[in-house]
Amino acid sequence: MDFFFNPRGIALIGATPNPQKGGHAILRNLRIGFKGGIYPVNPSYAEIEGMSCYPSIIDVPDPVDLGIIFVPAPLVPQVVQECARRQIPGVMIESGGFAETGKSGALLQEAIQSISKETGIRVWGPNCMGLVDTIKGHIFSFATPMMWDYGLKQGKVSMIVQSGMLSGVFLIDVMTHGVTGVSKVCSIGNKVDVNECDILEYLISDNHTESICLYLESIDDGRRLFKLCKNTQKPIVLLKGGKSKKGASAAMSHTASMAVNNAVLRGAMAQAGVFEATGFRHMIDLGRTLARYPKSATKFPGKIAVLTYSGGAGIVSSDFIDNLGLELAELSRTTLYQLKTITPEWMPLSNPVDLWPAVERNGARKAFGTAMRAVCADPGVDGVLFHAFSGGFGLSPDMAEIIRISKSAGKPLFCWLLGEREAARDFQERAQDLGVPVFRDLHRAVECMAAVFSKKPSILEIHEPEQSKKILLSETLENILTDKAGLMDEHVSKQILSAYGIPTVAEKVVIDKKEAIAVSAELGFPVVMKGLLPGQAHKTEAGLVRMGIKTEKDVLGAFDFLYKKMSENETGGKMIVQRQLSEGIEMIAGLFHDPQFGNCVMCGFGGILAEIIKDSEFAAAPIGLSEALDLISHLKNQKLLDGFRSFPAVDRKQLANILVRLGQIGLDYPQIKEIDINPLLNGDQGLMAVDALIVL
Amino acid sequence: MDFFFNPRGIALIGATPNPQKGGHAILRNLRIGFKGGIYPVNPSYAEIEGMSCYPSIIDVPDPVDLGIIFVPAPLVPQVVQECARRQIPGVMIESGGFAETGKSGALLQEAIQSISKETGIRVWGPNCMGLVDTIKGHIFSFATPMMWDYGLKQGKVSMIVQSGMLSGVFLIDVMTHGVTGVSKVCSIGNKVDVNECDILEYLISDNHTESICLYLESIDDGRRLFKLCKNTQKPIVLLKGGKSKKGASAAMSHTASMAVNNAVLRGAMAQAGVFEATGFRHMIDLGRTLARYPKSATKFPGKIAVLTYSGGAGIVSSDFIDNLGLELAELSRTTLYQLKTITPEWMPLSNPVDLWPAVERNGARKAFGTAMRAVCADPGVDGVLFHAFSGGFGLSPDMAEIIRISKSAGKPLFCWLLGEREAARDFQERAQDLGVPVFRDLHRAVECMAAVFSKKPSILEIHEPEQSKKILLSETLENILTDKAGLMDEHVSKQILSAYGIPTVAEKVVIDKKEAIAVSAELGFPVVMKGLLPGQAHKTEAGLVRMGIKTEKDVLGAFDFLYKKMSENETGGKMIVQRQLSEGIEMIAGLFHDPQFGNCVMCGFGGILAEIIKDSEFAAAPIGLSEALDLISHLKNQKLLDGFRSFPAVDRKQLANILVRLGQIGLDYPQIKEIDINPLLNGDQGLMAVDALIVL
Repeated sequence: MDFFFNPRGIALIGATPNPQKGGHAILRNLRIGFKGGIYPVNPSYAEIEGMSCYPSIIDVPDPVDLGIIFVPAPLVPQVVQECARRQIPGVMIESGGFAETGKSGALLQEAIQSISKETGIRVWGPNCMGLVDTIKGHIFSFATPMMWDYGLKQGKVSMIVQSGMLSGVFLIDVMTHGVTGVSKVCSIGNKVDVNECDILEYLISDNHTESICLYLESIDDGRRLFKLCKNTQKPIVLLKGGKSKKGASAAMSHTASMAVNNAVLRGAMAQAGVFEATGFRHMIDLGRTLARYPKSATKFPGKIAVLTYSGGAGIVSSDFIDNLGLELAELSRTTLYQLKTITPEWMPLSNPVDLWPAVERNGARKAFGTAMRAVCADPGVDGVLFHAFSGGFGLSPDMAEIIRISKSAGKPLFCWLLGEREAARDFQERAQDLGVPVFRDLHRAVECMAAVFSKKPSILEIHEPEQSKKILLSETLENILTDKAGLMDEHVSKQILSAYGIPTVAEKVVIDKKEAIAVSAELGFPVVMKGLLPGQAHKTEAGLVRMGIKTEKDVLGAFDFLYKKMSENETGGKMIVQRQLSEGIEMIAGLFHDPQFGNCVMCGFGGILAEIIKDSEFAAAPIGLSEALDLISHLKNQKLLDGFRSFPAVDRKQLANILVRLGQIGLDYPQIKEIDINPLLNGDQGLMAVDALIVL
Repeated sequence: MDFFFNPRGIALIGATPNPQKGGHAILRNLRIGFKGGIYPVNPSYAEIEGMSCYPSIIDVPDPVDLGIIFVPAPLVPQVVQECARRQIPGVMIESGGFAETGKSGALLQEAIQSISKETGIRVWGPNCMGLVDTIKGHIFSFATPMMWDYGLKQGKVSMIVQSGMLSGVFLIDVMTHGVTGVSKVCSIGNKVDVNECDILEYLISDNHTESICLYLESIDDGRRLFKLCKNTQKPIVLLKGGKSKKGASAAMSHTASMAVNNAVLRGAMAQAGVFEATGFRHMIDLGRTLARYPKSATKFPGKIAVLTYSGGAGIVSSDFIDNLGLELAELSRTTLYQLKTITPEWMPLSNPVDLWPAVERNGARKAFGTAMRAVCADPGVDGVLFHAFSGGFGLSPDMAEIIRISKSAGKPLFCWLLGEREAARDFQERAQDLGVPVFRDLHRAVECMAAVFSKKPSILEIHEPEQSKKILLSETLENILTDKAGLMDEHVSKQILSAYGIPTVAEKVVIDKKEAIAVSAELGFPVVMKGLLPGQAHKTEAGLVRMGIKTEKDVLGAFDFLYKKMSENETGGKMIVQRQLSEGIEMIAGLFHDPQFGNCVMCGFGGILAEIIKDSEFAAAPIGLSEALDLISHLKNQKLLDGFRSFPAVDRKQLANILVRLGQIGLDYPQIKEIDINPLLNGDQGLMAVDALIVL
């Protein structure tokens, strides 16, 4: 991919001297900072802005590593073809008029895709705004050159965006407000070939990128995205547009996107340690914060000291810290003693530390400095939320000193700033240049702080789950899995689960009444009797389940009843007698194939609970034990897992192991489309699959 | 209260020529805009800044309506006493050193309170930053006079704040960033006499105030606050500091506040139509938006048209609109036809309307203008979210025209703005001067839009609940309620509920086995038998409940069992036989006395559900039928009310009526401290009180 980012020479197909056109803007933008050869291509001109213009790509001298294409859509396939013939490794198509415009555009797009596949030329776009690299000064974009008059603010955040807005107007907003600097912004458009994963992979190993923000309306290869995110320590922030039904339908008419199943997406991204943003500014705020503190993930929850000049702001900070899963640090006696030296006698000291009286007595410099040194030396403090005001009241701290203290103690510092507009902007830029994120909104400051201190499973544990050796199944089961298709019956399904060490309820197939009575006696009353018919997934609704069988007489009655029911069916089936378990919390666990992420496991509450609380979580499979435990910890109703009335607590580790094994089955037998354990009952003997289905 | 806001003359006790002191700052601030007489008081000086200085308040010439006190705390009580003797109607104490500093300060504060009570002098503060009125130019505050050099930005939002920060640095931030103008900001400090309600009442009838923001750490008189909010059409926004446990403990060391029960607070405030803010900026954003659109509450949910220049921003807007309870408007055929005139042929048209191609073809002025006219004329559109960019790309709309269209159509307009810093600020100020709220954050724009279109019960239905005539109880019940105290037994409690028309389960007191059998037969098996002992609230735990009694033999057994249990108790009791109802959703309903809000009703899910989902709502009582329905609609698990497996749906109106009646009982018999209906079972015959307790 490097030829897209660092081409030796660029041919601009569609260059024009008309300043109203994008082909002119791209040329001007290239000349701002690109150091390699720039070759305008347009048969209508011999020269543009003093540069030689070439009639076609074929005539362009070497070296040319990148073609930027800005010609009307119908001409694009031919131009791409010519570039391929010219052995140019990649093109960036910034013209619109493709899949986003309807059917004929979609056909043009398909044509380009074929050329890319046949010739191997890499295609970025179409319908995109290309690339901006502030470090190198590369602007491969048709955004009005005037935009860069405000200056490119360099930073460590890179972005991959599926909307031109974010690489245009949003960038101006962010850069001119001094909110943050950026490294690379990649607008990917319709993704005919180069997609978010190709660029993400590149940026993960880019030295000028400390964190990566993605705005995506569609996800091309969920499994690859998952793996890339999971295997890097670089913080990644994702804003997914089109999460609501309406948003998704808007997405489809926008960049021709497909909505993915958001529950699966969220599960897989959480599993990969990706931070989820809820809006554009949230995305950039998370990105710039994590670029500053990319590796502070070992403390969880973070214990925060709040230094403030306002009791009220301290109270509201406490509320936010509490709500967002952080903790207020308990200050040590040493810390309190040091704070005592600057505060009046009467003042009760606690965290948040209200420094207004200290500032009045000692001046801002001494008050904030002393307090900062004290909390940074406190082993019970993991990070500091510093409230600053800029523009009077004698409140200005010596920020360089404050930041120095934070850095030498290795305690992340987060600054919430109020202030007069000009003074505040200066403060913000200075602090950010010194490496400290500044926030104008207190809630956002605490949100970003929480992200830094949140557990990041993919960062803490970056190895792939251990792939245990394939389990050997009996020949019968092996044959079934190889030869059959469709729905496996409950009994066969549970035999397979059982072979993988997933506990299943005791049961036997019976062929006559005598055997039914014998098995019932062996299992012990009460028992359940079920009729299993091929392809029948809804036994209860079909009247094929008899529960609460307590006597031999009941067994006989149930046998007759089920026998009759089953005789109505031509294909025949089998009857099983099953131990009836004591009541307990009903869970559901399963494996399924997601179109975006491939095999995924799920886990949630089942039975009556499922109807009330709808609480389930997803992860890409296979899955390691600690990932599975993490998934379980994301279930909202944790208290239910801890036991409930007379119901015993769920052994989280046992549950996690079941998920690990479900993932393993999926790996061993790719022909399995779906496994559904429902209910996975947590009785006196722990979790047990009471009913299960496997779909081949 | 008017003498606080519009005094004819002000005595400043504690005036000083020392520019480092607050007594100097107040003087300078008064001279900025106060037109009445200003009388510095300080025995050490004859003149300050060219003004006569008086040795004591007694020497100050008339008229003096307000004393602003800024002397050390120990001197304050005497000064207040002198002001009272001087017949000054009110003082504003801006000195600190009172309850916020510990015990001795608290005693000083009590002394002031006594003087206020004895003499009738109204006391604002202490420990506050007084009042800023931008319209009149009144600055009764010790905030550094330099702060006003940035200019007072006038607006229609007034604030009542229990933190000096909000009337100082926050104000500078808001005013210099052009976010909004304000009308009055009242810093109330320790509230020894004048509290949030006094000022709220004043601001509700203030012509220069269109909306009121409150930041409170304590609530002095919840009932009065509730009534004021409920009976005004002026939008009120509340940010409560100290909602978390940690926040509340910080609050106690700050302004000597008491945390109130937040569930009750939230319920009562929602009932009164108060908007809840989650942070400082959220508070001011809601305040300024509602000041612009104070009465747009008739549409619910609001149907929104989104005009954007970015497909991506449209998608994310759709997600927010969906999440926040608004709806995307379905555009009419006429609207689509008009949009067709400016958009390219290929472009699929829907809402959000992506106007980028239209801007490219027609210019921003025509594209946005045509689209705005079309959606504003559309009867299916209630409001418009307009995405604007300022600073290039040829995207600048004619905002004056856009706003004119919105106003003449009467459709609220909300503007989300990105842009180059200076251009954006100009845009924002211009738009706001033209009466349209502008937001820099898209999510916040949609949040504020949702507030404008949210149902405001207090505004839609401002009348007090009808107070029905007092119900006549039997002499026995009347006597019990008059003479007894403590816990009433289940049977008596339900008789009282029944007299108020609340359905109760059929039951009878029995005195011997014969009667027990006869009553059981009369009620029909199965029955429940219970032993009621005086003061025993936990019958089940005490083994005094026998359920599932199906035969006469069971009755005899239960009788013996309960008789024996009850004999263990010296005080004696009674035995009841009760019909055992079919299963159903168990609710809880009750009445209780909240220290802040007085009588309140509560309603929630009971039984096993209560343990899983913890879902209950509160409201101040008495309560009207539509308020009760509103309360019920706030329960999170609405689907459960719609019926569940074999359980019938809850009749919301019946449930609402029960809450209305609980409120009525509380009104008729103020001696009732608590009523607890648990469970209120929703069986085949609807809701029925199965067990209940009344505490006198």
